[in-house]
Amino acid sequence: MSDQSPNHDLDVGELGQQLRVDAIRCSAAAGSGHPTSSMSAADLMATLFARHLRYDFANPEDPNNDHLVFSKGHASPLLYALYKAAGAITDEELLTFRRHGSRLEGHPTPRLPWVDVATGSLGLGLPTGVGLAMTGKSLDRLPYRVWVLCGDSELAEGSMWEAFEHAGYERLDNLVAVVDVNRLGQRGPTRHGWDTAAYARRIGAFGWHPIEIDGHDVAQIDRAYAEAAAAEQPTAVLARTQKGAGVAAAADREGGHGKPLSDPDEAIEELGGARSLRVHVTPPDGRGVPHSFGEPGTVKLPSYEVGTEVATRDAFGDALAAVGAARPEVVGLDAEVADSTRMETFATAHPERFFQFYIAEQQMVAAAIGMQARGWIPYVSTFAAFLTRGYDFVRMGAIGGADLRVVGSHAGVSIGQDGPSQMGLEDLALFRAIHGSVVLYPCDANQTASLVAALTDYPGVGYLRTTRGATPVVYGPDEEFTIAGSRVLRASAADQVTVVGAGITVHEALAAADQLAGDGIAVRVIDLYSVKPVDAQTLRDAARETGRIVTVEDHWPEGGIGDAVIDVFGHGEQAPVVLKLAVHGMPASAAPDEQLRDAGIDRQSVVDAVRSLLAPE
Amino acid sequence: MSDQSPNHDLDVGELGQQLRVDAIRCSAAAGSGHPTSSMSAADLMATLFARHLRYDFANPEDPNNDHLVFSKGHASPLLYALYKAAGAITDEELLTFRRHGSRLEGHPTPRLPWVDVATGSLGLGLPTGVGLAMTGKSLDRLPYRVWVLCGDSELAEGSMWEAFEHAGYERLDNLVAVVDVNRLGQRGPTRHGWDTAAYARRIGAFGWHPIEIDGHDVAQIDRAYAEAAAAEQPTAVLARTQKGAGVAAAADREGGHGKPLSDPDEAIEELGGARSLRVHVTPPDGRGVPHSFGEPGTVKLPSYEVGTEVATRDAFGDALAAVGAARPEVVGLDAEVADSTRMETFATAHPERFFQFYIAEQQMVAAAIGMQARGWIPYVSTFAAFLTRGYDFVRMGAIGGADLRVVGSHAGVSIGQDGPSQMGLEDLALFRAIHGSVVLYPCDANQTASLVAALTDYPGVGYLRTTRGATPVVYGPDEEFTIAGSRVLRASAADQVTVVGAGITVHEALAAADQLAGDGIAVRVIDLYSVKPVDAQTLRDAARETGRIVTVEDHWPEGGIGDAVIDVFGHGEQAPVVLKLAVHGMPASAAPDEQLRDAGIDRQSVVDAVRSLLAPE
Repeated sequence: MSDQSPNHDLDVGELGQQLRVDAIRCSAAAGSGHPTSSMSAADLMATLFARHLRYDFANPEDPNNDHLVFSKGHASPLLYALYKAAGAITDEELLTFRRHGSRLEGHPTPRLPWVDVATGSLGLGLPTGVGLAMTGKSLDRLPYRVWVLCGDSELAEGSMWEAFEHAGYERLDNLVAVVDVNRLGQRGPTRHGWDTAAYARRIGAFGWHPIEIDGHDVAQIDRAYAEAAAAEQPTAVLARTQKGAGVAAAADREGGHGKPLSDPDEAIEELGGARSLRVHVTPPDGRGVPHSFGEPGTVKLPSYEVGTEVATRDAFGDALAAVGAARPEVVGLDAEVADSTRMETFATAHPERFFQFYIAEQQMVAAAIGMQARGWIPYVSTFAAFLTRGYDFVRMGAIGGADLRVVGSHAGVSIGQDGPSQMGLEDLALFRAIHGSVVLYPCDANQTASLVAALTDYPGVGYLRTTRGATPVVYGPDEEFTIAGSRVLRASAADQVTVVGAGITVHEALAAADQLAGDGIAVRVIDLYSVKPVDAQTLRDAARETGRIVTVEDHWPEGGIGDAVIDVFGHGEQAPVVLKLAVHGMPASAAPDEQLRDAGIDRQSVVDAVRSLLAPE
Repeated sequence: MSDQSPNHDLDVGELGQQLRVDAIRCSAAAGSGHPTSSMSAADLMATLFARHLRYDFANPEDPNNDHLVFSKGHASPLLYALYKAAGAITDEELLTFRRHGSRLEGHPTPRLPWVDVATGSLGLGLPTGVGLAMTGKSLDRLPYRVWVLCGDSELAEGSMWEAFEHAGYERLDNLVAVVDVNRLGQRGPTRHGWDTAAYARRIGAFGWHPIEIDGHDVAQIDRAYAEAAAAEQPTAVLARTQKGAGVAAAADREGGHGKPLSDPDEAIEELGGARSLRVHVTPPDGRGVPHSFGEPGTVKLPSYEVGTEVATRDAFGDALAAVGAARPEVVGLDAEVADSTRMETFATAHPERFFQFYIAEQQMVAAAIGMQARGWIPYVSTFAAFLTRGYDFVRMGAIGGADLRVVGSHAGVSIGQDGPSQMGLEDLALFRAIHGSVVLYPCDANQTASLVAALTDYPGVGYLRTTRGATPVVYGPDEEFTIAGSRVLRASAADQVTVVGAGITVHEALAAADQLAGDGIAVRVIDLYSVKPVDAQTLRDAARETGRIVTVEDHWPEGGIGDAVIDVFGHGEQAPVVLKLAVHGMPASAAPDEQLRDAGIDRQSVVDAVRSLLAPE
């Protein structure tokens, strides 16, 4: 293979030295960065670029391109030095590393067209690579390979073992993890040091093909990559390396993590000075077209009869199956609770586009990030409470501009007897605090269906919160709900207070309004189904017209619907009087109606809150 | 061993049948619950209680007691049936399962005196058990054993592999994982079904002693537990079982997860009817006293000179080392970033009480939950951004009433060049949304030290946010800061606006106030170092006296300081005009001062915000 390479006259060892020099140069120019973590992996990546990667830098959108993920994202100086060697960026741009306005950030992001996903939180790159490899096998159905450069420190992260398990079981032979075993973490030696056999035993037990090599021996690296290409299972190249390799003052030394070399000029001289080698990365052979699961059509959403009772989780499942029928890019991901979240309905309708991750929420979210990088539209779903497990990956997804649809079921105390461990009570706070996110919380089945359709094409992170129990259908099947909208369900010129709820509390608010109306107290009711962005204008109108607002939510008091409402008035205007009802005490087991009452978010609590606002001081 | 047991005339198989019957009975009475998941593990737990567990039910506080953690917390009917068989609860109480007011919740919590930690989020019990086992070895130094009943489905969770790695490496021979391999998860078959060898290969590769048995054969179970007691490494008993074992209509059937049996009476008859066997659990032999690392003393906090510049992360490290010197129960936990968080200072001062988890945040938090269950005072620390990985365990810790101190460093955009993946920008939202939590964000070194001292004895989850860069020392070393307090740093009768900040933005607020004072605009400045609970009275006074509030924070706009301030006025009173400054755009790499300016949270942004509030409409 090497003979036919366009780089047959390239000394790969020399390229490795150039990468080291450039990593040192750009970090020195920045005054920060991780040159020593780059130097350990320089030969590994030089060999990859010169002889094995199939990538067209002129056409990063080519679906046949291999994928390279730097799971050790802090080795960004190496990545950018590779881009320079491949002719993708200039030396001038390389030296903008970490500067204000530069796209060469401290940790790589998809602001660079050759980067699929943002990394920098360790343990994320490999499970994302699993998602890309699954996409290659099962969605795109193209023979591209996925290369993931991992650190040895990050092998302590559980998310890596979710990835090893999933990839091994799925026999993803298009996936290669290149582990830069440089023995030194940020603080000091790693748990297993240079004991690559310890990693090989573990990774091998998960069904991978482990290969132990000297990570500074180009011939060994070359052979390992060739072996990986021939393997019928995922391959882990466990490469023994030296952090800071090539520079005596830095090599295998503690205390050098994450800082420029103390004497860059001397180091560069020791490495033989600056070079301007060019590596010709071979474009992919094939001109394959990604598989399609059919022609796009018009979405025919399910419809539900007003007055019946349907759980919004049921409507989610029905709607996603319907959206999937019309939109062949939609895929569904589950963490072994599809029967509860109702992702099962999608799975039954579209088994080829349904992926089971078992109880591994991090791997599930990471796989979705990988799939959306290739243009698919993934929906991930589990109990809202358990999305907390995958939250860092949602956070990183947002940093990388990922389009992720996340559905959390079993929201709030209203689930009843299962108790607090199963209740999503912080999910609104978590997803509102995701940059650029959309947070939706429908109260009925038709609204849910409409919002699933709206969410499908919405960019960024979109979160849909569903309810376990059946709730009355209050909207007709033809009503359309848009992101950033709301519905005023009760309104009159005589309204004295506005009650704002979403999801299950909309029904409590409506019942309270009816009860108060019987006592001659007119109350406006707003269904704030779009918790972020909120319909600020409707809230401002209500504030102006009624002067007082009660918010009611099945969520902790922090970061949910009440805060979303109050935030509207946090921009320098006069706020109305607001009274927030939310879950204050720690719930235990009880029936759903007992839970709502105990939490003080049931209809009677709303009635009491309205009356308290109207009582003379 | 069995011969000398007080249960020598007890038929353990019969006890297993009783446990099944009682699990069925209490679930039937509740109308919900997980009887089939209980039935598979009944023989495993019957044998444990009859022959191997050392526990004094009359004295759950005995430090010599073994610990039993139900990592598969949904098998709570089995746990409560065991408590009944051991005489700890009555049959009458057993039948209150999942009812309003009962302490027998759907998933076990420490409301029951025999439960150490709340479970119910899968993948949590084993890493918590690792923490208990570490406590036995390294802190208490007592020979108790830790038994963890795991499900097979939860072996997909990465957190379990963090636990296998940590326990194997630490050779925790006092830890036994009993894995109930019943082949069926919630939705259907698990990945590996009854292939216990697949689990044995994986777990064995991590340095554990795996034993594969028939989980319904009491003799095999008995031998496995005896073998575990003799092993010099942690043991995993991989028990092949049937979900719903003992009842033909339920055994090894899909679709029976998490619901009462369809015909409980028939099932009970098939199992031979109700029994009232009593199991005599052997109390611990020893009367050992937990190890102590010295006598408690008076805390001598570090002090810093006003006007110097010191990073609050440095002060945290200094202060924790000082607190540790006076408080021998304090321990420090790290996820391989102690050099950055400055936990290193504690590690150097108290190496026997410092624990390295490498980059495994879930295991780190879980271990702390285990340690606090035995009365130790753990501090866990990593970058604020990476606490997102352990968030589910913090959530579960709060459900279990755990006393956890969590420290997040590298808060906000002010870290500078490393970029968004390393910036804690949602941590205030996350920790404010933890039930009963305390959230502290000091602005200077003396304040940090004082707050570390205050946090040490504060119950519940306490979060301290620290800053990477040096900030001016503005408070004298003798000032004491209390939880729920604040400091008014600038005030006069002429104040037209109040600026509220915390941490790094306090200094921006002070600079802005000085600049505005030069222009004749008097501004009040509040240091809201206690973000939760907030000092509501001081904020109300400021609102009344100045009418307008600007909040400024190095955090996303959702769930942080601004929302904490506005929330004070969310209880039905008239709110002031509030203008929130926070990080709106996605940051990239830049110098700290550039970051603050770009985010619109620097001194000039505060000046502009104050002026905008004072401008005529």
